[in-house]
Amino acid sequence: MSKFTIEEFNEIAREQLPLVETLGFVVESIDQGECVVRAVYKDDYLRPGGTISGPIMMALADFAMWGAIMSKADRVKMALTTNLNINFLLRPQPGDIIAVAKLMKLGKRLAVGSVELFGNERNDLVAHVTCTYSLPPSTIHEGEGS
Amino acid sequence: MSKFTIEEFNEIAREQLPLVETLGFVVESIDQGECVVRAVYKDDYLRPGGTISGPIMMALADFAMWGAIMSKADRVKMALTTNLNINFLLRPQPGDIIAVAKLMKLGKRLAVGSVELFGNERNDLVAHVTCTYSLPPSTIHEGEGS
Amino acid sequence: MSKFTIEEFNEIAREQLPLVETLGFVVESIDQGECVVRAVYKDDYLRPGGTISGPIMMALADFAMWGAIMSKADRVKMALTTNLNINFLLRPQPGDIIAVAKLMKLGKRLAVGSVELFGNERNDLVAHVTCTYSLPPSTIHEGEGS
Amino acid sequence: MSKFTIEEFNEIAREQLPLVETLGFVVESIDQGECVVRAVYKDDYLRPGGTISGPIMMALADFAMWGAIMSKADRVKMALTTNLNINFLLRPQPGDIIAVAKLMKLGKRLAVGSVELFGNERNDLVAHVTCTYSLPPSTIHEGEGS
Repeated sequence: MSKFTIEEFNEIAREQLPLVETLGFVVESIDQGECVVRAVYKDDYLRPGGTISGPIMMALADFAMWGAIMSKADRVKMALTTNLNINFLLRPQPGDIIAVAKLMKLGKRLAVGSVELFGNERNDLVAHVTCTYSLPPSTIHEGEGS
Repeated sequence: MSKFTIEEFNEIAREQLPLVETLGFVVESIDQGECVVRAVYKDDYLRPGGTISGPIMMALADFAMWGAIMSKADRVKMALTTNLNINFLLRPQPGDIIAVAKLMKLGKRLAVGSVELFGNERNDLVAHVTCTYSLPPSTIHEGEGS
Repeated sequence: MSKFTIEEFNEIAREQLPLVETLGFVVESIDQGECVVRAVYKDDYLRPGGTISGPIMMALADFAMWGAIMSKADRVKMALTTNLNINFLLRPQPGDIIAVAKLMKLGKRLAVGSVELFGNERNDLVAHVTCTYSLPPSTIHEGEGS
Repeated sequence: MSKFTIEEFNEIAREQLPLVETLGFVVESIDQGECVVRAVYKDDYLRPGGTISGPIMMALADFAMWGAIMSKADRVKMALTTNLNINFLLRPQPGDIIAVAKLMKLGKRLAVGSVELFGNERNDLVAHVTCTYSLPPSTIHEGEGS
């Protein structure tokens, strides 16, 4: 069972991350170390050549991974990204981008996950992200290791 | 000598990258494979804990590196980021962030560079980025290799 | 159908990559953009604390990805790694490490893939790698894009 | 002042990291968060095309960064690499490779640094690495942050 419902999570996000609402990110599912978020297309997303801006995709991946961590660990509102690595694979056409974030490790101090970013309604893999979050000492967690 | 003046570069950026103006990025210098860009602080930049949002820093680094490439290579408006890796080092306090981007390689097909992101008026190194751009075949370039 | 059998691939590897034989890497399967390689445990692999050395895991991932590319693209013996990013998740106990490499993109100029590294006979995910290879212009390839 | 002389550091390395001696790495300087290591050329280093193998360069960078950390923090023999990202810039010709590692952050729990790898006696920048180490709780350190 997730520590948060979608509604609770969206509310926390709106409250804490003004950028999320500005950018139009909507959580589609959040459960058991996995979080799916949709970036609803806006013209602001575009960069030259009619493709979606890279920073929008990075922001989406970062947010989806935060959700994946929160689905398993309480009280990690303050979790901070320490590393993010993104590979851009295909230029997405104008349209929604969907991020599927999965935790690979939830340790005492670090959480690591990967995020696949899809365009064309989950048919095209447009980018791949791995990222690491530093967890505050007080975090209740499942699992062990560093 | 740079291929662009700051004014020409800012004009191209405004025209091609709507996000740059929205986010309040200002080019401070651009010359010989190096580009310095200032993100003028806005409240939108904040994330929980009163620190600057990671995606803002990624967007800033990506843009500064684009400038560093353009300072040496004509006709690369269509250069596309293929990889970006960021390490967050210190939580920046609310305030301007300054990106210093330097080209490490300008090949026929790929450009690779590193970006240091500073807070507190270039006194605190808050993040470090490396990124790779794919260059279109028509790009006029200096240097060789792939 | 793969462009190479395991035997042919192992022979090319032995001939071209002396390090592979030195390190004791054995290809278990290679087909359709996926390649599985086993690092048969040697005492040389160890680092302080009785865990497997990181560079051994990087070498294994790099080699497995090369196999994944060769399974789909002829004449890419000269493919060169341009970027490799590794996250270490769990300290593997002394024992074999198994790499599962999957192509995410095979373009005209770049191939990008991810590699999962397992210990404890594929029960523990010990590291995750993404890497990019630059392909020589002459490569015959499937797929499009850059 | 460094916490270790070159001789002490080389002795610890030989004792703890058998791979270092096998690969022929020699520390040239270690002081104040900076460590320079030379990989003395061996034929084993080669990969197809007569260039130096990527994994050798990764091993070299990883070791040099370990030295940079040890120069500032006692008792970190057990520091573990959590992330390493490498960009290969130029194919080095057969010959020594020199790594210059610099700490960018030494926090309570994480150390982050960058490494430049040179060929042709420090004239050619052949690769650039950033890496993160997790520090054991007992580490004595300078500086603060996470």
